[in-house]
Amino acid sequence: MDKTPQTPRTTLKRLPQRGSYDRELIDRILDEGFICHVGFAVDSRPFVIPTGYARVGDSLFIHGSQASRMLRTLGQGIDVCVTVTLIDGLVLARSAFHHSMNYRSVVVFGNARMVDDPDEKLAALRALSEHMIPGRWDDVREPDERELQLTTVLSLPLGEASAKVRTGPPLDDEADYELPVWAGVIPLRLVAGAPMDDPRLPADSEAPNYAVEYARPASKR
Amino acid sequence: MDKTPQTPRTTLKRLPQRGSYDRELIDRILDEGFICHVGFAVDSRPFVIPTGYARVGDSLFIHGSQASRMLRTLGQGIDVCVTVTLIDGLVLARSAFHHSMNYRSVVVFGNARMVDDPDEKLAALRALSEHMIPGRWDDVREPDERELQLTTVLSLPLGEASAKVRTGPPLDDEADYELPVWAGVIPLRLVAGAPMDDPRLPADSEAPNYAVEYARPASKR
Repeated sequence: MDKTPQTPRTTLKRLPQRGSYDRELIDRILDEGFICHVGFAVDSRPFVIPTGYARVGDSLFIHGSQASRMLRTLGQGIDVCVTVTLIDGLVLARSAFHHSMNYRSVVVFGNARMVDDPDEKLAALRALSEHMIPGRWDDVREPDERELQLTTVLSLPLGEASAKVRTGPPLDDEADYELPVWAGVIPLRLVAGAPMDDPRLPADSEAPNYAVEYARPASKR
Repeated sequence: MDKTPQTPRTTLKRLPQRGSYDRELIDRILDEGFICHVGFAVDSRPFVIPTGYARVGDSLFIHGSQASRMLRTLGQGIDVCVTVTLIDGLVLARSAFHHSMNYRSVVVFGNARMVDDPDEKLAALRALSEHMIPGRWDDVREPDERELQLTTVLSLPLGEASAKVRTGPPLDDEADYELPVWAGVIPLRLVAGAPMDDPRLPADSEAPNYAVEYARPASKR
């Protein structure tokens, strides 16, 4: 599937040239990010909750405690909207009006399904871990049966998804290019610092490479 | 007002020790962030849209094009949920189960109001600009009457807001501390790179200090 279908909900009314239904672009944004904002409504009242996620093929997985109100609500199959936003820069124009941001975002609409099968659940948890910190899973103690039961995993199909992207310099009104005002882009990115040892580690512990060299996958922009 | 009232919507069911209704903490998180995720429901279907914001006193301002479907919908006073999330680090435990994230987030519930008064609108736009890039407003061409009309500004009271914070090292099961596995925190933060000149700037243009030294306000953690 190269394109997701364009639906009324994913059709951009504003600046449609920034929108895309290209699955490769959507996947690249989802694979670079690791925090999504999950939106749902209870009695018409909206809730927006941040959480981690991972993409596997045509699905997004999110997970959390069995006690999570959000996951229990979503597990009933109500409508959900999941948004992932990567901030790439601040766009400084010559007029206040044309200031903007460079960003890449994906919005997914759909209905989540509870992952009950233990094998599928374990595979999803591995994917969530590897999405966040590639290489980590094989180093740590895997979830035992009790922990698996305490964990809820949801799967959301990527059927109704769209991307929105802004890149490049500001676009000013033609007359404003004469103004003696600096204009351009301040690039922004999420960077990792040096790993901080847990205070209860033995003195000679060394952080693994995947922690020392941690970085999100660079995305072709 | 030192505390926001605790309501059924802002009461944390899970890990209540991570929750707070302390306005100083809420304000500090809102003032460090600059992107929020705005959630609302149309016919029970949720939408989550990223956008810039600024806090002024007891209100959040968001703005956008007059043509924005989201802003027009919210301007009618329907329920909205605005969430701001700052990611501070990845928390690597000795077990897969206890992996976590360090973060600070704020969730605001309420009903937005359209800002119609031209003076209040201009003040809000200045606040939005100064929140994003302190010092910028005085350098640029201010919005003219037409641009003001093309811009929609909404104000959302901070009456029903809560913060959620996780800090510090992983918390493993006691038995797992024996495992020969590195554990700790990978700190993450959003950093600015060197400003990129607009291609149409004169050759001798120099980026202003607020662009060269751009950084979000450091928050006491």
